[in-house]
Amino acid sequence: MEKAEAERKVEESVEEDDQVVNPWQVSAKDGGKIDYDKLIDKFGCQRLQQSLVDRVQRLTSRPPHVFLRRGVFFAHRDFEEILNVYERGEKFYLYTGRGPSSEALHLGHLVPFMFTKYLQDAFKVPLVIQLTDDEKCMWKNLSVEECQRLARENAKDIIACGFDISKTFIFSDFDYVGGAFYKNMVKVAKCVTYNKVVGIFGFTGEDHIGKVSFPPVQAVPSFPSSFPHLFSGKDDLRCLIPCAIDQDPYFRMTRDVAPRLGYHKPALIESSFFPAMQGETGKMSASDPNSAIYVTDSAKDIKNKINKYAFSGGQDSIEKHRLYGANLEVDIPIKYLNFFLDDDAELEHITKEYGAGRMLTGEVKQRLIQVLTEIVERHRRARAAVTDEMVDAFMAVRPLPNMFD
Amino acid sequence: MEKAEAERKVEESVEEDDQVVNPWQVSAKDGGKIDYDKLIDKFGCQRLQQSLVDRVQRLTSRPPHVFLRRGVFFAHRDFEEILNVYERGEKFYLYTGRGPSSEALHLGHLVPFMFTKYLQDAFKVPLVIQLTDDEKCMWKNLSVEECQRLARENAKDIIACGFDISKTFIFSDFDYVGGAFYKNMVKVAKCVTYNKVVGIFGFTGEDHIGKVSFPPVQAVPSFPSSFPHLFSGKDDLRCLIPCAIDQDPYFRMTRDVAPRLGYHKPALIESSFFPAMQGETGKMSASDPNSAIYVTDSAKDIKNKINKYAFSGGQDSIEKHRLYGANLEVDIPIKYLNFFLDDDAELEHITKEYGAGRMLTGEVKQRLIQVLTEIVERHRRARAAVTDEMVDAFMAVRPLPNMFD
Repeated sequence: MEKAEAERKVEESVEEDDQVVNPWQVSAKDGGKIDYDKLIDKFGCQRLQQSLVDRVQRLTSRPPHVFLRRGVFFAHRDFEEILNVYERGEKFYLYTGRGPSSEALHLGHLVPFMFTKYLQDAFKVPLVIQLTDDEKCMWKNLSVEECQRLARENAKDIIACGFDISKTFIFSDFDYVGGAFYKNMVKVAKCVTYNKVVGIFGFTGEDHIGKVSFPPVQAVPSFPSSFPHLFSGKDDLRCLIPCAIDQDPYFRMTRDVAPRLGYHKPALIESSFFPAMQGETGKMSASDPNSAIYVTDSAKDIKNKINKYAFSGGQDSIEKHRLYGANLEVDIPIKYLNFFLDDDAELEHITKEYGAGRMLTGEVKQRLIQVLTEIVERHRRARAAVTDEMVDAFMAVRPLPNMFD
Repeated sequence: MEKAEAERKVEESVEEDDQVVNPWQVSAKDGGKIDYDKLIDKFGCQRLQQSLVDRVQRLTSRPPHVFLRRGVFFAHRDFEEILNVYERGEKFYLYTGRGPSSEALHLGHLVPFMFTKYLQDAFKVPLVIQLTDDEKCMWKNLSVEECQRLARENAKDIIACGFDISKTFIFSDFDYVGGAFYKNMVKVAKCVTYNKVVGIFGFTGEDHIGKVSFPPVQAVPSFPSSFPHLFSGKDDLRCLIPCAIDQDPYFRMTRDVAPRLGYHKPALIESSFFPAMQGETGKMSASDPNSAIYVTDSAKDIKNKINKYAFSGGQDSIEKHRLYGANLEVDIPIKYLNFFLDDDAELEHITKEYGAGRMLTGEVKQRLIQVLTEIVERHRRARAAVTDEMVDAFMAVRPLPNMFD
């Protein structure tokens, strides 16, 4: 397929559904909401059915994570296969990551890590976390040194999520690319044409070749042989990737290539996007600090931001609100509580009362401020306890002898 | 520039001069000879003037290498600058390489290494030799393991050329890519668009992204910071690359990028191609063993090949030969002697007598067989003395404390 044709195909598919979701852009039709059903169809992944959530509960003997109960992680590829493997008494490993482009993480950034921490605890499995400092160096106008600094800063926030050091290897690409990892990069790159990455990622001829070279870097942590210090002799180990669905293109490509290399396809469990304060129209914007709650925000910041910017579905006047109730479809406080208020009964109560107009926006925001302040304060305390030595320890290339215990 | 346009430009430039010279293809107009003057014009490098050869002699206090005296190395970029640096009492380093795609090297493969060995001895400078096993894995249908095996086999032939282990670091990309080297790869990749590599290398959309990713790998050994174990704190060290002129596209790209990274442009000294036995129409073909003399050929092989296949410019009959003399322009024995017969007076004598018809093709071939047999025998003995431990030692990532002595 010629490049012009490939670009036309990408454009056509954009025109078709008017929403663009890839690792660098998330935008819905006319600035509206992402249609996740359409996205599942387009990407070819599966919806995460309740039966699978129930099975997770049964297999792990613990309540499913709030992100599973509430459908935050809503799509998957071969997750059932991972559960089969686990049920047979075999193990798997987890792979997630982050592009370290900013100093402070917001709550949306924490979502995959909070969920991955739960998966690690529930299934008792090892975890590799990739910090794509090379990607950020290539996409943003940042120096190698700055990206490496941000990677270490972000590693502290990730460690603060509570990962088990005896089961977790965090690595930066600038540090770790080489050896078996690089060999797998080359093997993957051999299997993917330029036209193919244009079709998947929408690159153009004016994009630099760093961008074209990057997809194999994010692909290969899916293969245990990329980590000989961890998985030597365990080439058959399955991999499960918890991530936001915008990362799906990388792993569609990876799954396409894997069988040609004699490797297992990685399984995925994918989340929707954490909505911006101003409303659910995609991902949050790093350029607008009021579009998100950051883990560095003070209690006062959180209170001000929620009260001032969290888009409300409540009515204009108390009279109308009592009469019609809140529009929960567009209400951000309810959506945020849906992510972070663990108590199902309380959430149901708030949703019902607020939707019926018996509860006011101010009261809901008040509760949300409590919930988020507690999470952010807990994160701040945990992060303050993360020393440089702990970062070094998590990022050391070392065997993890107890990773399957 | 759009890709279609870029491709058109490549095609136009091919049509213009009807010869194609890039790292994967060397072909002249109508199967004729490469026009090196046109190539110099097209690539934008300089012809190596006699004055520079004289200056090398003066600076090194030794006769210039036969490849310099005879114009085998005939073109350069900034070689004068390297001599200025050297004259000021500063040092530089040498960088050359090989794509390890075959078990046995032929004489043409030895040309850059013989010349590099001379440069190392004459200027007393360190040398890095890149074995692009990753390139061969991506371009040929070879496994990672096979390419690594070939890299080690080829390293033995290279070491047999007599390099000084206290000044020489040989590395395979699969072993060495990572760390500072990978950081430089990313920095280079950021500066080169896809359209640009299409213009330089003629890639198409059907080519895999491994090919598109590779040019930075060959670029970055030009920068001392890619070798912190050798050149730490010597970021200003200049680099001189002896290579065949088909490698020029890589280093045009590298020189284009270098100033944007705050690095020196590498200098180049470039050779013409060693002609095939059947005549000077480009490079030798790996698929035809009779098109070249291999370093594994026996004395009998050499004798048979030269007598049977070396294209002669002699006349059909002795009578006509005595009358018209040999056509030296197309005569392969004379061309091979031009490369490998060190004695200028003897070469002049043979050329004169053969051209005048007083010497017959058989006599010239006889002398060539002697010369080549001696070189190949000497190489075979040297290679047999290269142990696996020596290969490990040359390829060990280590400081070279005496590399500038």
